[in-house]
Amino acid sequence: MRGVIMHAPGDVRVEQREKPSIIEPSDAIIRLSATCICGSDLWPYRGIEHADHAPMGHEYVGVVEQIGADVKTVAVGDFVVGSFVASDNSCEICQAGYQSRCIHNVMMGGIGTQAEYARIPLADGTLVATPGQPDEDLIPSLLAASDVLGTGWFAAVAAEAGPGKTIAVVGDGAVGLSAILAAQQLGAERIIAFSRHPERQALAREFGATDIVEERGAEGAARIKEMTGGYGAHGVVEAVGTQESMWQAINSARPGGYVGYVGVGHGVELNGLELFFTGIHLHGGPAPVRRFLPELIQLIWDRKIDPGKVFDLTLPLEEAAEGYQAMDERRATKVLLTL
Amino acid sequence: MRGVIMHAPGDVRVEQREKPSIIEPSDAIIRLSATCICGSDLWPYRGIEHADHAPMGHEYVGVVEQIGADVKTVAVGDFVVGSFVASDNSCEICQAGYQSRCIHNVMMGGIGTQAEYARIPLADGTLVATPGQPDEDLIPSLLAASDVLGTGWFAAVAAEAGPGKTIAVVGDGAVGLSAILAAQQLGAERIIAFSRHPERQALAREFGATDIVEERGAEGAARIKEMTGGYGAHGVVEAVGTQESMWQAINSARPGGYVGYVGVGHGVELNGLELFFTGIHLHGGPAPVRRFLPELIQLIWDRKIDPGKVFDLTLPLEEAAEGYQAMDERRATKVLLTL
Repeated sequence: MRGVIMHAPGDVRVEQREKPSIIEPSDAIIRLSATCICGSDLWPYRGIEHADHAPMGHEYVGVVEQIGADVKTVAVGDFVVGSFVASDNSCEICQAGYQSRCIHNVMMGGIGTQAEYARIPLADGTLVATPGQPDEDLIPSLLAASDVLGTGWFAAVAAEAGPGKTIAVVGDGAVGLSAILAAQQLGAERIIAFSRHPERQALAREFGATDIVEERGAEGAARIKEMTGGYGAHGVVEAVGTQESMWQAINSARPGGYVGYVGVGHGVELNGLELFFTGIHLHGGPAPVRRFLPELIQLIWDRKIDPGKVFDLTLPLEEAAEGYQAMDERRATKVLLTL
Repeated sequence: MRGVIMHAPGDVRVEQREKPSIIEPSDAIIRLSATCICGSDLWPYRGIEHADHAPMGHEYVGVVEQIGADVKTVAVGDFVVGSFVASDNSCEICQAGYQSRCIHNVMMGGIGTQAEYARIPLADGTLVATPGQPDEDLIPSLLAASDVLGTGWFAAVAAEAGPGKTIAVVGDGAVGLSAILAAQQLGAERIIAFSRHPERQALAREFGATDIVEERGAEGAARIKEMTGGYGAHGVVEAVGTQESMWQAINSARPGGYVGYVGVGHGVELNGLELFFTGIHLHGGPAPVRRFLPELIQLIWDRKIDPGKVFDLTLPLEEAAEGYQAMDERRATKVLLTL
């Protein structure tokens, strides 16, 4: 089968890979209907994380092609969505809603779903079947649910978005934009998007942002305080993962407020004494997308949300290298790869 | 009047200070019935924080001697308990339960309550009157409510202590011990105290600890995982404030678990990427003691809890220097100063 391999930072190729087969009786094999490139794939692309002939990709939707002997909840032919972390969905951690840190978790990034087929470990705990075969135009949104939407949703929940709340969102990438959509769905009263990019500002507004702030860092945080009677936002989503963005998020929140962070931190160091005096709640990590999948799939199926709009470039899998480059150069927010 | 002044690190003296008077119409003057030395007073004593002729102390109980023209909720002659942070108790931050970060907050440490009298700013928002004049033996417990009990309580709430929960407590000082008492009152099923000190272990058990762990750091955290089926504690209280204790707390919690930290961080740096993959909730800061005071005072008044047991040395105010030394040398957990 064909699949994406990152030979080294900046060197992405689509090559022949061995078609996966069932290893454990809890595995399923899916034929990908679509996959995509994640903002986090840019860390190794830019050499900030290690990359040496690594299979790439952890987002996926597709059709079940084969199941292991123990698989019960999905059947051959089902259209399925799964999280970027495989989970048993039954351990205490999963039952508490933290499937991405399941005691038996498998990071799908190690498997590489930018490919024609993928092996999904712990299929019963990981995959959620859609109510039927989806219309073609729903596929981008279902694919978004696999990571960016679920991640933005988790961040908005961690930021305690809800009625009467002012929520600020740091990061106007696909996850930040998804968090805006989530905050809107969760009933937030006011949603402030940090963005300097006209097209992303437009999508932010379409997803529910009520205000746009172009300032960044300390200046950006000061602007939020100014807009909220000196208090700060009730909740803030952090969806970038740098030192500046983390403190921008923390300092945008009021004391006792909530920061939901999902940007994979690189070079972030939080000084304990400074953090102490902010008095905020800080919660984040790899989003437990599986927790939200049934609800998100239904919202998409019922055409109540259209998160697939975060994809602004669609390419065939064979042109994955161009997709990486477009995202790296910020010519694209998020790239969908067709199969 | 007589009051404690820290001339320089290690140099604590009791000297003549000017008796405070009403400055703002929202002020009250109290005559202290008792005061005490806080673990955090040891930071300047040890030269880790600046100290130059600073009035000391931020914990207090006493009798209202005089009130400003605007004060309505306490009257001359009332016995009162207040938090270590004065607050208006009416701004949005206070109303959300974060009075220690009130938009008009005044840190009582700057005023110095290790003295015969103290001016309490924002008296209506800060002071809570007891149901009557307390019996002498209740005074240590009421004084504990002013900081250590309220702080331990906040930490236990932040750690989400409650029925069915396993809570670990890092720090066997007065705050850690108070957090154990709080976790027990909040209904935690299992309370694991980290302690190597036989007398503190005994008080921890008396306050509700079900298990004692003597290991520290990574070894201590590994022990908690081992004791909880590999998962980690549901919630952890951090009541020390060092790099080792913070990570001991974070690594003792399960993914999705809660760390309530109230140790004033010194030299603490949290690596963003490491924190990200723990998936915990982190919440702390200067405890909003005022939130809990009415409830804590009632529990003490009804003799349902006896947090005054954390005081294991009582000295007259004049001997404050000996009190500081005893706490610095860990000969005393917490020193009460009588007046």
